[in-house]
Amino acid sequence: MPEDAPVFERVALIGAGLIGSSLARAARATHAAKAVVVTDASETVRARVRELGFADVVATSAAEAVVGADLVIVCVPVGVQGEVAAEIAPALGTAAVVSDVGSVKGAVVRAMAPHLPAHVHFVPAHPVAGTEQSGPDAGFATLFQNRWCILTPPQDADEAAVAKVRAFWERLGSKVEIMTPEHHDLVLAITSHLPHLIAYNIVGTADDLQTVTEGEVIKFSAGGFRDFTRIAASDPTMWRDVFLANRDAVLEVLGRFTEDLAYLQRAIRWGEGDKLFDLFSRTRAIRRSIIESGQETAAPDFGRHAAAESKPVPIPRPYGGGE
Amino acid sequence: MPEDAPVFERVALIGAGLIGSSLARAARATHAAKAVVVTDASETVRARVRELGFADVVATSAAEAVVGADLVIVCVPVGVQGEVAAEIAPALGTAAVVSDVGSVKGAVVRAMAPHLPAHVHFVPAHPVAGTEQSGPDAGFATLFQNRWCILTPPQDADEAAVAKVRAFWERLGSKVEIMTPEHHDLVLAITSHLPHLIAYNIVGTADDLQTVTEGEVIKFSAGGFRDFTRIAASDPTMWRDVFLANRDAVLEVLGRFTEDLAYLQRAIRWGEGDKLFDLFSRTRAIRRSIIESGQETAAPDFGRHAAAESKPVPIPRPYGGGE
Repeated sequence: MPEDAPVFERVALIGAGLIGSSLARAARATHAAKAVVVTDASETVRARVRELGFADVVATSAAEAVVGADLVIVCVPVGVQGEVAAEIAPALGTAAVVSDVGSVKGAVVRAMAPHLPAHVHFVPAHPVAGTEQSGPDAGFATLFQNRWCILTPPQDADEAAVAKVRAFWERLGSKVEIMTPEHHDLVLAITSHLPHLIAYNIVGTADDLQTVTEGEVIKFSAGGFRDFTRIAASDPTMWRDVFLANRDAVLEVLGRFTEDLAYLQRAIRWGEGDKLFDLFSRTRAIRRSIIESGQETAAPDFGRHAAAESKPVPIPRPYGGGE
Repeated sequence: MPEDAPVFERVALIGAGLIGSSLARAARATHAAKAVVVTDASETVRARVRELGFADVVATSAAEAVVGADLVIVCVPVGVQGEVAAEIAPALGTAAVVSDVGSVKGAVVRAMAPHLPAHVHFVPAHPVAGTEQSGPDAGFATLFQNRWCILTPPQDADEAAVAKVRAFWERLGSKVEIMTPEHHDLVLAITSHLPHLIAYNIVGTADDLQTVTEGEVIKFSAGGFRDFTRIAASDPTMWRDVFLANRDAVLEVLGRFTEDLAYLQRAIRWGEGDKLFDLFSRTRAIRRSIIESGQETAAPDFGRHAAAESKPVPIPRPYGGGE
């Protein structure tokens, strides 16, 4: 295959949220697909996709979108992936590859696989990339560059189909890793789901404090709190579904987190500074590794490169569409 | 006073970490001080300050530094502020103003005040600004711009001294608020100390998981974990001291955090999606307020504006000096 030949002929994206709309833009920008078909359950979102012009075809239903597609990527919240699979199943072409972008893999495979006809190849995927913003306006073509995409193909998956899905993601600039759905769910429970839960929780706790006003929380958020609010602004529907679908792994890592926190709490109560110092030194080294691996930069990040800008930037309001 | 007349004649900064070295640079850049004297307990740091050239005078001891200064700002970790106060006390000039930059105020006032002679004016301060980096190289002149600085003067404080300290911080670009040390400590417990504790804790929990490798945690950190590592890379000495000095307020907000987390844990276990959705929607609104207040920008922040840079940026190693 020549370097810039399309990896797939016709890619159908079901759901035009942050991820779906970024995929459409990226697939076109990198010629990973000859044609990109996009649909979304919301008519408002479909109209906006037409205006933004990042799809070759905007289909009015998921079933219509997948006709003739050799790659179908389901980009909707985890909780409705099963329904979408049932809807598209009769319309899927022979030897079509079906994939998704769900943040949970075990539950999603169980929800989607039973609906899919035997003639299609199911290669679940999870691009570990995103921002706190949602909807078709939020997407951009470089979202997946230098980010990891995890594939969780079933053990008997067609090797050629897996290789093509890998090639597709690599074309978008991602690095690809393959693992079992179970291991994926545990890895993401600690690297993504627990951080989001903690962030949502601390923002809620701050909001409920009666001795400190909300105005004070906001004014003085540069002391550290601000860093949590970014991920606590992520799409509520998407995240509700993630926690319900990855319950066991999340409860497992949450149990460990709580246990560790009790240890710190006790160290503070009893004035055991050495225990605090030991942990605080260890965590600094992990940060260094993340920066060295290219998943972050060392640039100090006070107010996100715009401390001097006083004009607030408008925030896109959430769409009902998938992410 | 003309717009650009110096607010103080001679400002002595004890400790040349991130905050002290930023103060020196900012005071010179904005002409807030006619002369800036800097010292640090570490000879290595003092030598580096001479090389960097951001001080008019580099003094070899705290006692030497304060001679002739009309403003002295103690910029060392909270745990050693009392010692520094004792050391400088005999050398302080008549009517000198003494301040600090500690992240805790109640304990610090109790540690410093008894050492200070009656002829000086004590106006404790806390600039709510910083980065995860430490040492004299990490400082920069714009660190305090558009950030809040909290003053906690005693009830009988000299009004003119408080006004001059306020004018000093405003000259550096800060907004100033005055409150009691007790209220400060509660506000910062929720906006800064608890977030740091939680961040340190989750990074430690991830590091200890045996079913997920450290390499995996780092690779997939873009899923949310990465956001926590920034503040978990903050100076260990400074933060150990903060938790020991603000024990009661930290334990109070930590208790509420843990209680709220148990509620979420139960909602996940019992599949109560509506409870999760309600909280996740509420927290999004708080983020919006923080952005509207200018303490953050809405720019999506995947990999901190440098996703395409593959070259790791060297991270300054921690100095022993204060922050």
